[in-house]
Amino acid sequence: MGLIVQKFGGTSVKDAERVMNVAKIVTDTYKKGNNVVVVVSAQGDTTDDLIDKANEINPDATNREKDMLLAAGEQISIALLAMAIQKLGYPVVSLLGWQAGFETTSMHTNARIRRINSERLKSELDRRNIVVVAGFQGISRYGDVTTLGRGGSDTSAVAIACALHADLCQIYTDVEGVYTADPRKVKNAKKLGEISYDEMLELATLGAQVLHNRSVEMAKKYNLELEVLSSLTNAPGTIVKETAKMEKMLISGVAKDTNVARISITELPDKPGIVFKIFSKLSSKDINIDIILQSVGRDNTKDIAFTVAKEKGKQALELLNEYAREIGAGSVVLDENVAKVSIVGAGMETHAGVASKMFEALYDNQINIQMISTSEIKVSVLIDINDADRAVSAIHSKFFDAE
Amino acid sequence: MGLIVQKFGGTSVKDAERVMNVAKIVTDTYKKGNNVVVVVSAQGDTTDDLIDKANEINPDATNREKDMLLAAGEQISIALLAMAIQKLGYPVVSLLGWQAGFETTSMHTNARIRRINSERLKSELDRRNIVVVAGFQGISRYGDVTTLGRGGSDTSAVAIACALHADLCQIYTDVEGVYTADPRKVKNAKKLGEISYDEMLELATLGAQVLHNRSVEMAKKYNLELEVLSSLTNAPGTIVKETAKMEKMLISGVAKDTNVARISITELPDKPGIVFKIFSKLSSKDINIDIILQSVGRDNTKDIAFTVAKEKGKQALELLNEYAREIGAGSVVLDENVAKVSIVGAGMETHAGVASKMFEALYDNQINIQMISTSEIKVSVLIDINDADRAVSAIHSKFFDAE
Repeated sequence: MGLIVQKFGGTSVKDAERVMNVAKIVTDTYKKGNNVVVVVSAQGDTTDDLIDKANEINPDATNREKDMLLAAGEQISIALLAMAIQKLGYPVVSLLGWQAGFETTSMHTNARIRRINSERLKSELDRRNIVVVAGFQGISRYGDVTTLGRGGSDTSAVAIACALHADLCQIYTDVEGVYTADPRKVKNAKKLGEISYDEMLELATLGAQVLHNRSVEMAKKYNLELEVLSSLTNAPGTIVKETAKMEKMLISGVAKDTNVARISITELPDKPGIVFKIFSKLSSKDINIDIILQSVGRDNTKDIAFTVAKEKGKQALELLNEYAREIGAGSVVLDENVAKVSIVGAGMETHAGVASKMFEALYDNQINIQMISTSEIKVSVLIDINDADRAVSAIHSKFFDAE
Repeated sequence: MGLIVQKFGGTSVKDAERVMNVAKIVTDTYKKGNNVVVVVSAQGDTTDDLIDKANEINPDATNREKDMLLAAGEQISIALLAMAIQKLGYPVVSLLGWQAGFETTSMHTNARIRRINSERLKSELDRRNIVVVAGFQGISRYGDVTTLGRGGSDTSAVAIACALHADLCQIYTDVEGVYTADPRKVKNAKKLGEISYDEMLELATLGAQVLHNRSVEMAKKYNLELEVLSSLTNAPGTIVKETAKMEKMLISGVAKDTNVARISITELPDKPGIVFKIFSKLSSKDINIDIILQSVGRDNTKDIAFTVAKEKGKQALELLNEYAREIGAGSVVLDENVAKVSIVGAGMETHAGVASKMFEALYDNQINIQMISTSEIKVSVLIDINDADRAVSAIHSKFFDAE
């Protein structure tokens, strides 16, 4: 008996049958005596359909109006899920982002939650209502509808769970938990029983795509236990918490991220401030940089390469082409055919040789490494996108099959 | 130069092309120096699609959740129209019902507007923004999304126009104005240049369906000039105002209403209070009664017949069957194959013989009259539904062709 927050993504509510299935999971939790808050995304393809409608009319519309449009998607799914819960005979109320008290910044399409005014949520729970909340959306200080950007519904769920001091936040997806690699691609991929926040963070950032890093960061900050599990099977999922039993594994997973592009600039004049200027130009346009490689070039110049999210690649290229001409640098090249493959594991901190084991696996398969980046619990390599799946399998075998 | 409120229904914004067409009309009005508030309905079939989705899951869901679901329809259309207006290069902001300050009663699916808090609307107009408002929806005192029921978007538009003291409220539809009869059915139907509120009210109530009576009543109360016109042609429409030039016509129109059912109860005991009891039973279930006919029956009993809206027919029948048994009345019969045909015109007040001219037209065409109801500016008859179109044509010819 406690308070449980459950989050269901778009595929979990994609049609009437799936919505009824979710209603069943929710009411099963409720009838055990728990209070339940459910956070849902827009149904299946709704968001894409709405974006198509918008693009047909005006692809350059303001982000404010894009948010107004997209927020309708979750509105539809919360109403339908509430109707399904009523059908099963349980008391329920659906709430939009603003009704659930999601106060956000006014950065439309990518807003951050400032606070949750949980008054309404609490009063509905006090009445023993199941509360169905629209994920992904909130309201700005100007009273405008905002959306939270990628992974927004996970973030909504975790934020509510933190605000209400929930006992558990369950993230339902179409996989059974967090795996040592993508189970659709790597046949020996193993489901993890537990994983630590930090490892999950690295995996989320690296494209494992089960949980968005914003939500894991928030869960870590408030020490909220998360469970990642499937809405289609009854199997227990993966628990994400502060200190996970690591089952004596060196690494907890291998992840692939293809949402990455590589930009290189050659023959940069070797003067102070030039590199800083490049990164501040990108940062002013909200373009984040990941792996950076700097090397000495010819004749008192240097070369620099770095990665950005794929959708920012062209914009970054244009920005830097202009700047490169200005300062008399060489060429700026964008390569979108790259992928980042990473291993993550708290075990690395205490075990030497983890990185070299990874490089060995790549070398054995003649996969060329373009860039390398490491942190205490992760090693990432940038490789050709065509080698990515092969690389993940090879690394996974090296670490998991051999043991 | 003034403030103009324009309302566009679902067919006017049914696809990208139509949305762009509406954006053109709106911005043409704006660039003449006017402030413009636009009220839109959900696109074409959106509302029906949403109702289908709901019925697939739970046809007996609460009205609160139905409102939550349906309100998403207008949210989509306001965002798309705002995007189209941006495409044409004009400043615009879209507002949901609650953002536009529509405070309503909490009677879900059929809420009434209590007041409009026009603060946000005014501040957007002060900034010379075109304001696109979601019709049909508002917010209850409990912070829940409500919808206004049939004709809700017209009502929204007129309410905003009244609250902001607009100079004109234009209701754009798929016909060019108010006609002497349905132009799709009656070939000599004539467009009226002007019509009075009272005549329009009778026509609206009687199924002419160009304007809902709630909106005409409100316009009359605030003496707001309305214009009914087409979003597809450039032709001037019909002006609705206090005193209309009636162009020397006896009647302003012939209307047909097929949303009607007839209920008759025979052999009611002739005791005081019985008829009152019947009507109070119906009224407690929100069933409105229109034409009433009472006649003396056999053996100290009486018969009574009356009409209700078609969708309330079965419910009324069940209610009254029970009561009839209780008081020992005869049978209760429901007839759904009826239609109400009416003539409306301020000219009637000063001209005798208008009603008999109508009856003559029906007699000449051997159409049997079941019930009659009259007011100062209208005569309605209840006839077999299969005679309805023929009756409208015959009456229209009698009044308009002959002159």
